[in-house]
Amino acid sequence: MEVDVLKIDAEKCETVKDTVTDEIFLTIHLNGEELLTLLCSPDNLKELSAGFLYSAGLIHSPDDIENIFINNKDLTSHITLKEKNINTDFIFKRVYTSGCGRGMLFYNALDLAHNSSVAGDVKIRSKKVIELTRAFQKKSEIFKKTGGVHSAALSDGESILAFSEDIGRHNSLDKVIGEALFKNLKMENLIVLTSGRISSEMMFKVQKMRSAIIVSRGAPTDLSVRLAERWNVTLVGFARGNRMNVYTAKERILY
Amino acid sequence: MEVDVLKIDAEKCETVKDTVTDEIFLTIHLNGEELLTLLCSPDNLKELSAGFLYSAGLIHSPDDIENIFINNKDLTSHITLKEKNINTDFIFKRVYTSGCGRGMLFYNALDLAHNSSVAGDVKIRSKKVIELTRAFQKKSEIFKKTGGVHSAALSDGESILAFSEDIGRHNSLDKVIGEALFKNLKMENLIVLTSGRISSEMMFKVQKMRSAIIVSRGAPTDLSVRLAERWNVTLVGFARGNRMNVYTAKERILY
Repeated sequence: MEVDVLKIDAEKCETVKDTVTDEIFLTIHLNGEELLTLLCSPDNLKELSAGFLYSAGLIHSPDDIENIFINNKDLTSHITLKEKNINTDFIFKRVYTSGCGRGMLFYNALDLAHNSSVAGDVKIRSKKVIELTRAFQKKSEIFKKTGGVHSAALSDGESILAFSEDIGRHNSLDKVIGEALFKNLKMENLIVLTSGRISSEMMFKVQKMRSAIIVSRGAPTDLSVRLAERWNVTLVGFARGNRMNVYTAKERILY
Repeated sequence: MEVDVLKIDAEKCETVKDTVTDEIFLTIHLNGEELLTLLCSPDNLKELSAGFLYSAGLIHSPDDIENIFINNKDLTSHITLKEKNINTDFIFKRVYTSGCGRGMLFYNALDLAHNSSVAGDVKIRSKKVIELTRAFQKKSEIFKKTGGVHSAALSDGESILAFSEDIGRHNSLDKVIGEALFKNLKMENLIVLTSGRISSEMMFKVQKMRSAIIVSRGAPTDLSVRLAERWNVTLVGFARGNRMNVYTAKERILY
């Protein structure tokens, strides 16, 4: 998706066209029954469907597949196996990975319509965002040592009030949410900082916190940009060194 | 965890001590019932538990919590809420996030014992690994444009035979697995390349493919190193520019 981005660096602040990566919901149907929905990029959906079934241990070779059909209109994948009696219950064991941190899913696409926008009137100077991003990175001690974790933090615009790290992006955000709860911090007044990419599940968490600003070192997906727009959340990506990209609700970032 | 790593770069090849980030399974019990298991880093487990419940919409303030107890011996979290009649079914909607790509979990910790090691006698020169890593990165066109996706590839040691990108680490690997299936490639003879971190779920996929070598731009977790060791899979991390770290089954990488 192409979007208008406010690009800010030490010298200037300008609006440019930029591309954000696409994110879709693909619902997989197996032998006529809905199996599950994946959040993914919109290409190679046949390969994704077959690879998913293989990783899940449901197929062992292409010969196990009778037919795969991708419906690009409603983003569904329909797979028929030669073997019709497949037990898929074991897929849904309640173990969640670090990647998802089980970010999942306390929501579905339909929930989107029910959520109200964030009213927060927080504003912050871009210079302050750069300072916070630096302070945030300095705190990432584990990362410096092992390179394997994500960080998240909450700030009142002046300093870092809560900070956590985890191998999972979602876990690190949940850890600072927990810290904010125990410290009785008002999350709706705080800025969320994260080292990881912003995909839709991260935005769902931010919306739940009623926070007005999220700042990431990484890139956002198109779905997260659309959600931020709808909820009037200020989404800042690529916040590194002296620069950042502001994607939505740009009036909260003062240059 | 501290491990012996074979560090290879253009000038030398030496064994050094290095730290890899820890990864654990934390099982959360809510009001006396097992709720789910998270893969996470082993710190701030109280905050993680409370933040998870908040993100899931099960609590709205710290006052909703009667008690939280973390058992550090068996890595369980026990949370009692004031409200005893909590419906948690909606947590397990079958939507999986891009982060997890639903890497999840066609396995549990116990499966570890049942898996046999990889027999593959593939060997590869470190120079070749560097060449492949370069070719792999060149292919990451979407990444260059938007910065928001992960790549995965399969190689026979000479060239890239399958390649995919996705916002989810696991999806990108599932996509190349699907491609390999459709092309009738023998996965056990192929080298897996990935742009993302290697946590245990990635290793479970590699083990399912029976591949002998996985090469990543990113860091591995301690659990993935231990799994690679057990299964005799060669795990290469931080493969960037002229350098790489070989963590396990080092005899497959020739200097």
